[in-house]
Amino acid sequence: MRMNPRRLSHAVGFDDAPFDLRHRGDVLVVGAVYAGARLDAVLSGTVRRDGANGTRVLAELVARSRFRGHLQLILLQGIALAGFNVVDIQALHRATGLPVVVVSRRRPDLNAIRRALLEHVAGGARKWKLIERAGPMEPIGHVYVQRAGLGEAEAEAMLERFAIHSVVPEPLRTAHLIAGGIVRGESTHRV
Amino acid sequence: MRMNPRRLSHAVGFDDAPFDLRHRGDVLVVGAVYAGARLDAVLSGTVRRDGANGTRVLAELVARSRFRGHLQLILLQGIALAGFNVVDIQALHRATGLPVVVVSRRRPDLNAIRRALLEHVAGGARKWKLIERAGPMEPIGHVYVQRAGLGEAEAEAMLERFAIHSVVPEPLRTAHLIAGGIVRGESTHRV
Repeated sequence: MRMNPRRLSHAVGFDDAPFDLRHRGDVLVVGAVYAGARLDAVLSGTVRRDGANGTRVLAELVARSRFRGHLQLILLQGIALAGFNVVDIQALHRATGLPVVVVSRRRPDLNAIRRALLEHVAGGARKWKLIERAGPMEPIGHVYVQRAGLGEAEAEAMLERFAIHSVVPEPLRTAHLIAGGIVRGESTHRV
Repeated sequence: MRMNPRRLSHAVGFDDAPFDLRHRGDVLVVGAVYAGARLDAVLSGTVRRDGANGTRVLAELVARSRFRGHLQLILLQGIALAGFNVVDIQALHRATGLPVVVVSRRRPDLNAIRRALLEHVAGGARKWKLIERAGPMEPIGHVYVQRAGLGEAEAEAMLERFAIHSVVPEPLRTAHLIAGGIVRGESTHRV
């Protein structure tokens, strides 16, 4: 029996802060919790640059949130945080019980990413596996997505619902503005 | 000749982050820049706890912003940042050329503030003068305001326009959620 598509309107969108190329160590990650068009909370934590703790940190931020019970969806601005801290979206989906959608404005150059990972990044083979396992970047509407735990129709309806001021879903647009504004003193506009 | 009330829809709202009672030194201040209902940018800086640099820091954040040319209004969550770093709203109005509105949910206990300033805070007499010069807290709608550079009718229309998800104007509600979320890891709900 096929279930009706869920109406996913309570979402947290995560983005990482910009950092200097020479920076080593931790990088700020910001989560913007939305109920429909309303910002309900802001979450923050840190992940290791080019590290492997992104999945765990995001799962913990969600688990600790007072809004945990309301959340229906996790949105990510790209599958990697803080350089090459690649998120295991299947594991994040399992750990939180929530569907996970990676959103990108452009189709990423997977060949270039694969080469960079395998040639320059510690543990790159494992990180590349996580990207491969997340599946192809599907064009939906005006963006590209990878998804875990929800169907294409649900993803499409969700993207339309959250395309409030941009094709980028509002929780991600806001998380991006916050992360940039806190680290740089003023956010840059485009995500 | 009386001018028509201006329609003030481009605003930055500033709030300070929570801090530990034992904390000395700088405290995060966050500005949320809105065009109508849309968050356009996030600004951030620091002010000294119980210090006197709040007015200058806010004026600089506004002056440096790429959105400076669009801004029509500055909103403050209370007249003091970081404890007793009292903002000179007349000076901020003159420095930026923008009207300034201090918004509070409750009528502050001015006697208690005066006592605390005069008895416990370095430079308290000067800070108290700034509060006095900012004028009485006027009840408008569901909040109390002090204002510099705009009339009561303009303030009332602006408060109504920005009462999107709360009686607290949206730029201040968002600045509060961001400041708390960045410093505490998760924002608290009420401002």
